[in-house]
Amino acid sequence: MAGKQAGTFSLGVDYGTNSCRAVIVDTANGAEIAAHVYNYPTGRHGIILDPKDPNLARQNPADYIQGFLVGAREAVRAARKHKGFSPEKVVGIGVDGTGSTPLPVDKNGTPLALLPQWKNNPAAQAWLWKDHTAHKEAALITATAQKMKRPFLAKYGGIYSSEWFWSKILHCHNTAPAVFKAAYSWVELSDFIPAFITGNTRPDRIVRNICSAGHKAMFSEDWGGLPDKAFLKKLAPGLAELRGRLFELAVPSDSLAGFLAPDVAKKIGLPAGLPVAAGSMDAHCGAVGSGVGEGALVKVMGTSTTDMMVGSMKKKIRDIPGICGMVPGSILPGMYGLEAGQSAVGDIFNWFAHYLCPEEFTKGDRHANLTKEAAKLRPGESGLVALDWNNGNRTVLVDPLLSGMLIGTTLHTTAPEIYRALIEATAFGALTIVRRFEEYGVKVKQVINCGGIAEKSPLTMQIYADVLNRPMKISRSSQTCALGAAIFGAVAGGAYKTAQDAQKKMTGVKPITYKPIARNVKIYAQLYREYLTLHDAFGKPGTGLDGVMKNLIALRNSVRKGK
Amino acid sequence: MAGKQAGTFSLGVDYGTNSCRAVIVDTANGAEIAAHVYNYPTGRHGIILDPKDPNLARQNPADYIQGFLVGAREAVRAARKHKGFSPEKVVGIGVDGTGSTPLPVDKNGTPLALLPQWKNNPAAQAWLWKDHTAHKEAALITATAQKMKRPFLAKYGGIYSSEWFWSKILHCHNTAPAVFKAAYSWVELSDFIPAFITGNTRPDRIVRNICSAGHKAMFSEDWGGLPDKAFLKKLAPGLAELRGRLFELAVPSDSLAGFLAPDVAKKIGLPAGLPVAAGSMDAHCGAVGSGVGEGALVKVMGTSTTDMMVGSMKKKIRDIPGICGMVPGSILPGMYGLEAGQSAVGDIFNWFAHYLCPEEFTKGDRHANLTKEAAKLRPGESGLVALDWNNGNRTVLVDPLLSGMLIGTTLHTTAPEIYRALIEATAFGALTIVRRFEEYGVKVKQVINCGGIAEKSPLTMQIYADVLNRPMKISRSSQTCALGAAIFGAVAGGAYKTAQDAQKKMTGVKPITYKPIARNVKIYAQLYREYLTLHDAFGKPGTGLDGVMKNLIALRNSVRKGK
Repeated sequence: MAGKQAGTFSLGVDYGTNSCRAVIVDTANGAEIAAHVYNYPTGRHGIILDPKDPNLARQNPADYIQGFLVGAREAVRAARKHKGFSPEKVVGIGVDGTGSTPLPVDKNGTPLALLPQWKNNPAAQAWLWKDHTAHKEAALITATAQKMKRPFLAKYGGIYSSEWFWSKILHCHNTAPAVFKAAYSWVELSDFIPAFITGNTRPDRIVRNICSAGHKAMFSEDWGGLPDKAFLKKLAPGLAELRGRLFELAVPSDSLAGFLAPDVAKKIGLPAGLPVAAGSMDAHCGAVGSGVGEGALVKVMGTSTTDMMVGSMKKKIRDIPGICGMVPGSILPGMYGLEAGQSAVGDIFNWFAHYLCPEEFTKGDRHANLTKEAAKLRPGESGLVALDWNNGNRTVLVDPLLSGMLIGTTLHTTAPEIYRALIEATAFGALTIVRRFEEYGVKVKQVINCGGIAEKSPLTMQIYADVLNRPMKISRSSQTCALGAAIFGAVAGGAYKTAQDAQKKMTGVKPITYKPIARNVKIYAQLYREYLTLHDAFGKPGTGLDGVMKNLIALRNSVRKGK
Repeated sequence: MAGKQAGTFSLGVDYGTNSCRAVIVDTANGAEIAAHVYNYPTGRHGIILDPKDPNLARQNPADYIQGFLVGAREAVRAARKHKGFSPEKVVGIGVDGTGSTPLPVDKNGTPLALLPQWKNNPAAQAWLWKDHTAHKEAALITATAQKMKRPFLAKYGGIYSSEWFWSKILHCHNTAPAVFKAAYSWVELSDFIPAFITGNTRPDRIVRNICSAGHKAMFSEDWGGLPDKAFLKKLAPGLAELRGRLFELAVPSDSLAGFLAPDVAKKIGLPAGLPVAAGSMDAHCGAVGSGVGEGALVKVMGTSTTDMMVGSMKKKIRDIPGICGMVPGSILPGMYGLEAGQSAVGDIFNWFAHYLCPEEFTKGDRHANLTKEAAKLRPGESGLVALDWNNGNRTVLVDPLLSGMLIGTTLHTTAPEIYRALIEATAFGALTIVRRFEEYGVKVKQVINCGGIAEKSPLTMQIYADVLNRPMKISRSSQTCALGAAIFGAVAGGAYKTAQDAQKKMTGVKPITYKPIARNVKIYAQLYREYLTLHDAFGKPGTGLDGVMKNLIALRNSVRKGK
């Protein structure tokens, strides 16, 4: 055990889609000694929805604040039972969160949603990553960047997403002008928490992380930070004015965001003045906590999936169409961070289990019950193929206006058959991403999976091994995002010099690895051809079928609006 | 009230997919005075299935015999409570059944399935209409007819179906040669029952109805009855030999099949010697019992749907591609009978309600519960479109190797939304049939619906009215198939001179008619365009997507066979 980190600990706090989790880890080996999960109380499973618009997904910033205070306090309380722990031995704090999840704040950095006059306005809340209301704005941003010949999108796969920073802010500008006007600035969730706990909430003092800024806000040193004023003005004059009230600098997540403020320290039971690292996005932290390095694809498998790779900055990587971003330092300092992903994976399984689960599978754990029967099926046996687009397609089509599809149903098609087809569909989506990386020269030498599905669903992992025709490794930690945050906390606190040094000691994979089964690989190769036929027919322009999903969505939206 | 039929009654027995129903009706007005339903005890809901092959659907002929004896006996017993009824006042018996449902019989006309040595052989049972095992044979028959330039298929929409007589017998020949060899002849269910109850089971004495023979067995006077020997020999020499042991004559359903045999008469409590009409297929009888006439489309809406029209034989009707048949005298004597249909309608709703119904809709009547919520939705609101092909497509594509499909699912798609989309899909399929009829000059001036769905689902009827943009009338009788059979019984028994005369008195529509709602019509016209895009892309050759469903089915079959 190295000297500097002997007997020290780090606090990592991870903001997920429905809850946040605080963990205290041993900096010597990454072992989690205490944890607490805080479920966001607002809305449905923590998400504010609109029955008239399935694209809307917002969150209450008060849940975030309470999540930190309760989560950290309870984790510290639990850690006290651990031999060798004391609050004084905590060296640093790291925080990560979902993104792009921007929230409007006033001149003091107070979220508008916490002010009485905006409390009930959905536009004043945090705009959760999976909010898709801004698809028109996203299309406008893409078109405008093309028309004005801006280089912003080459690193984003060529298409700006409705899930990202500027789309959401522009949608607020267009549909909730009063909120837009009242917002002095906008802050990503992953920056807001470090700012809040260090007392640096004044917008000009908030430390912004390059992970969110680079992957979601088109921030790059190549063009002087955020997109230029002329470009923003073309989208809306208000955006150009906002630019100066946002930020000019964005830093890697091993940088310092500040020091733990006394009032917060007191509430959670840790010493005031502890170093707090700059924020990071959850998936990027998950990659770090899973031991991401060159040639390793880390899949963070949860409600959605994020696929993370890093690349050496010594040689140039070609821009890859359809991937969400390629940003220097966004995952590990000094390396390109590459991000791809699927807009819904676990969310699709949850949808099926919640909305279409027959009674016989509802006793106890629905997923376990459905999985048990689905696991008895052989690949190809159901005759089904699905498209995994219930929440649109993030990579490689980058199109939120796509939808889910199931083909091959008979009068005998069962729920476990469909459940398995949905798992397979997400695996085919995952393969499509791997193929795209490799087509552009980024070799996938190993796949490390983390997140709830990787841990809990051997069936899913086996299907992924068979479909991707690669062994599926599982990250040793069950909480790689929080562990990644704790790694940055440990670096900020001086326990390690670099995040890579910390990874060597604090991360690893489990003994179990899912290996491809040859006969399944062969059948899935056939099924993938059918998937790809449908993928291209419904997802790519000019096929004659590319309008179907969009027309249905347009009709749905017009009917729901009472037109 | 006309003199001849005053105070007389007729017995109609209708063989459906899961049960048979005997009714006694008043010949003066068609009123049903007594009825009894007999559920076939063998297999699942009366159907012998094969878990390895979803195409297989057979029935036990013993169930048919028992169904007549019990059904007629109990109906007569119940009728005795009716004032004015006595068994001596019954003037005739009519029978109809599903088709093509051929069964192999020995030299005495005994079904092989009733003989100990064949009892457990699925090929020796009745081959239920919806058995799709013979799709390869159907394709061969179509190809051979084309190659040998035979005119047989022009009246069948150009394509012979796996659901029909020769496909099934050829499949038996190819896959169960011992059964084929043991079969002296093959008899349609709708001919078998009249033969059995009149004691005329010897194959050369069985009266064959033109309805089954013409619509399913390529029987026509235009080419001297059944297909010629050379053609059959090309399919298999055994078929050519079989031809001479089948039949040379087929008659309309107002003809006489014989007289009630004493032993049967005794068992059911009716006088021996009662006239028994030639058989008919269920849907055709349903059309008669619904008052079919020129310009009236009768939709028999049950597990599947049959769409029946009649046309004057005074002017020539062009052959209509994709419809199941155009046969002189098959519905009403002296008129063309036109048959189209959908391979699954109620079966699709049942599939969903049985296999994918969430717990909250399972208390009590699942269909009622799902319908209640589905009825609250506006057209287009769900963003879903489905293809109604879970059991293949009968009209206008005539392709059993198609499958069901659902597109437009999100993470919020609910069971009632899907249920409604499935109803809408069947309505779009129905519209496609109406359009085909009209394209070929057969005008649809009114639509009369009968069968379980027409009676029980106002939501379905309203959706059909909106999608077809025509009023949906509902047949007065709840048992139009049995009523149609009773009408033929009444004619056979002399209560009326013609079936048309009997229809005038014995049929009618209910006071309620579902009228199109203009704003729904408009939205469904938009949705139908999307349906048609999918219909053509997946159902027509040469689109690039036409292989998807077939490839999935081929892969499924090979995996299920353990290859």
